[in-house]
Amino acid sequence: MDDVVGIGLLGCGTVGGALVGLLNTEADVIAARTGMRLEVRRVAVRDLDAARRRVPSLDPDVFTTDAVAVVADPTVQVVVEVMGGVDEARSLVLAALDAHKPVVTANKALLASHGPELHAAAAAANVDLLFEAAVAGGIPLVRPLRESLLGEPIRRIMGIVNGTTNYILTRMTEEGASYDEALADAQRLGYAEADPSADVGGADAAAKAAILATLAFGVEVHLDEVHTEGIEGISASDIAFASANGQVIKLLAIAEAVGEGRVAVRVHPALVPRDHPLASVRLSFNAVFVEGDAVGQLMFYGPGAGGGPTASAVLGDLIDAAANRRQGSSARLGVLVPADLVPVDELRSGFYVEVQVADEPGVLATVAGVFGANGVSISSMVQEGHDHEASLAFVTHTALEADVQATISALDDLGSVRRVGSVIRLVGDQG
Amino acid sequence: MDDVVGIGLLGCGTVGGALVGLLNTEADVIAARTGMRLEVRRVAVRDLDAARRRVPSLDPDVFTTDAVAVVADPTVQVVVEVMGGVDEARSLVLAALDAHKPVVTANKALLASHGPELHAAAAAANVDLLFEAAVAGGIPLVRPLRESLLGEPIRRIMGIVNGTTNYILTRMTEEGASYDEALADAQRLGYAEADPSADVGGADAAAKAAILATLAFGVEVHLDEVHTEGIEGISASDIAFASANGQVIKLLAIAEAVGEGRVAVRVHPALVPRDHPLASVRLSFNAVFVEGDAVGQLMFYGPGAGGGPTASAVLGDLIDAAANRRQGSSARLGVLVPADLVPVDELRSGFYVEVQVADEPGVLATVAGVFGANGVSISSMVQEGHDHEASLAFVTHTALEADVQATISALDDLGSVRRVGSVIRLVGDQG
Repeated sequence: MDDVVGIGLLGCGTVGGALVGLLNTEADVIAARTGMRLEVRRVAVRDLDAARRRVPSLDPDVFTTDAVAVVADPTVQVVVEVMGGVDEARSLVLAALDAHKPVVTANKALLASHGPELHAAAAAANVDLLFEAAVAGGIPLVRPLRESLLGEPIRRIMGIVNGTTNYILTRMTEEGASYDEALADAQRLGYAEADPSADVGGADAAAKAAILATLAFGVEVHLDEVHTEGIEGISASDIAFASANGQVIKLLAIAEAVGEGRVAVRVHPALVPRDHPLASVRLSFNAVFVEGDAVGQLMFYGPGAGGGPTASAVLGDLIDAAANRRQGSSARLGVLVPADLVPVDELRSGFYVEVQVADEPGVLATVAGVFGANGVSISSMVQEGHDHEASLAFVTHTALEADVQATISALDDLGSVRRVGSVIRLVGDQG
Repeated sequence: MDDVVGIGLLGCGTVGGALVGLLNTEADVIAARTGMRLEVRRVAVRDLDAARRRVPSLDPDVFTTDAVAVVADPTVQVVVEVMGGVDEARSLVLAALDAHKPVVTANKALLASHGPELHAAAAAANVDLLFEAAVAGGIPLVRPLRESLLGEPIRRIMGIVNGTTNYILTRMTEEGASYDEALADAQRLGYAEADPSADVGGADAAAKAAILATLAFGVEVHLDEVHTEGIEGISASDIAFASANGQVIKLLAIAEAVGEGRVAVRVHPALVPRDHPLASVRLSFNAVFVEGDAVGQLMFYGPGAGGGPTASAVLGDLIDAAANRRQGSSARLGVLVPADLVPVDELRSGFYVEVQVADEPGVLATVAGVFGANGVSISSMVQEGHDHEASLAFVTHTALEADVQATISALDDLGSVRRVGSVIRLVGDQG
């Protein structure tokens, strides 16, 4: 005789609808492998009629507009939060945890803003707060990081965790499209929203970077503490320069151990060698590359968004939460400690720096001299002339970020420099 | 106050030694995140002196040549089997499970030969039998498959799960090396053993294919039931043909759902499109590509062997087993059912077929006619002449394997056919 577990759904959009579909089609498989039947008992939605039309497989009576009642319903034993937003979601999740009901959430913004509070509430209640779907959509990543790699000395995690920006960069790389053309295509195809700023500006990736840092290093990181740069400034000429040098440009979320328990967390475009596994991640796919002292290099690849993939991740968590609840156990992140964050100024990497100058004698020497004066060593330089202007593309050896920023300030002050264009960090095996 | 968990190690070679090192360096991190200290209490080895020299961090008294005593030792609460071999390992693992001690093993041959018996013993004792390291070395794959994707309708798993063969094929592809040259290099560099037959013949990959099928579909599959072909017959001209067609040749372990609960499990070289994620897996790296109805496409990438990566995987399992033991719970594969296996004859795919013929009038028409007579439709053909011989490279449309085998038999009987060379299946999105 199978155990029946009552599920309460907060939200029933694309992900919630796909989850209901999976729970129907896979019910027998889940029962055979776990001895449990997962039954959706209450569903909170904004628009009752629309939800009933979209998910006709559920009894119309399970839908309600009262989310608090779903959490409180005594027949609901596990709560799934797929409604999005931060404030209402936070209070509902806290209410569920306080009532000793495990929670599965796909809400990265919620976790990046209130993670420590929510994890503490889950620990206090000894119930699960699971969030596989909140980072890299359908890719099983959270469980491997928090369980399989718990004892692994992780050095760095680098993720392509935003499908919109990866789609835009892929189109620019493979077709020579401009940023504006690629963005317009992404919007037309539904990969980017009408207001794409949260994606292209890096905020979405920053929320995921904060979560990755927590998983990898057991530290509390808030979204606001993540150094964030987007891809709005990436030009077709940056992409062409990268291609000519055997590299591709990717927007990376990076969480890195920087000695003595310190951690650096940042999001920015990066030049990645073409034979690096991250370079072959195309279009809207996501991937997370993990480097550890014992394990070496791992990569997890898959769809970063979409109803089906996200529902798949939620379902894995839901089964886990229900099984743990039956056993009276719970997954745990362990004790989180506040992160000792290293400011981006103190990090080191190679840099690509593009400088537009007046095409007059002695300019190259002057500009190159500014790099040297700030302790930044140049690895290569390519000059291209156009009329009375020239574009200088410098690649530096590994340098301190603060020195490169000082170089750029000094260049901005030079009369012969028209403009400092893109400044893009190099990422590779050397870090 | 941390719980102390006593570990018994069976074997202390490369993996065991690396595990002892990780347990030392990561002890504080593990304690902080789990509240447990994992202490190696007894270690069974063949050569006491060699082991003591190699692992000086352990008290010399923990080493013994009596493996049975390690399992029986009352201070040993969790057993780690990294000794290899099948018969002795089987009886030791069974003894540990019977004594209600969780077991972590890295032994793929053991699982592929006696998996159902061992899983049943673990279930009967309600203790863990964990084996992350047995498939794809350091890649966290078993836990994602058995937990994260438990409710996912998995359609197919395709893995590059043997580093030796992938190294050889990569060298052949990137440098135009012959099979013999690449194999000799692999042996010199330690990627291949003096007797490479278990790797190049596909038996190692077959053991992993059996385990993957069990994880994906919940069925019992024995090593002997896996249709297995190796890479010994792959020639430089096959590789060149693949490159010219935008493909690479990879040895794949494939476990696939074929309707109505039937499963096909096989290992063979395959032509993979160059933009497929598996195509970019180079050298001795492993990767496992998973296709599911909800999640779409996932890939798990990383080192498939080596002391550090394997020890990392064992450590993840060890922490899990110790934590589950403390909670009185255990991970479970669910009930395994005997597999309803589809013979390879009944499968469909495109094929590359190379035929050496006498270069005389009408041969091409005769040979092409044999394909047609057996119901195999030709998609493309390339003819290359050498002296009085010609080499014909056919690519077929999707065809039934039995029909292609009949075609090859008929070609072998033709007077004008000198030899049927490589026959390689095409693998891609269409299956």
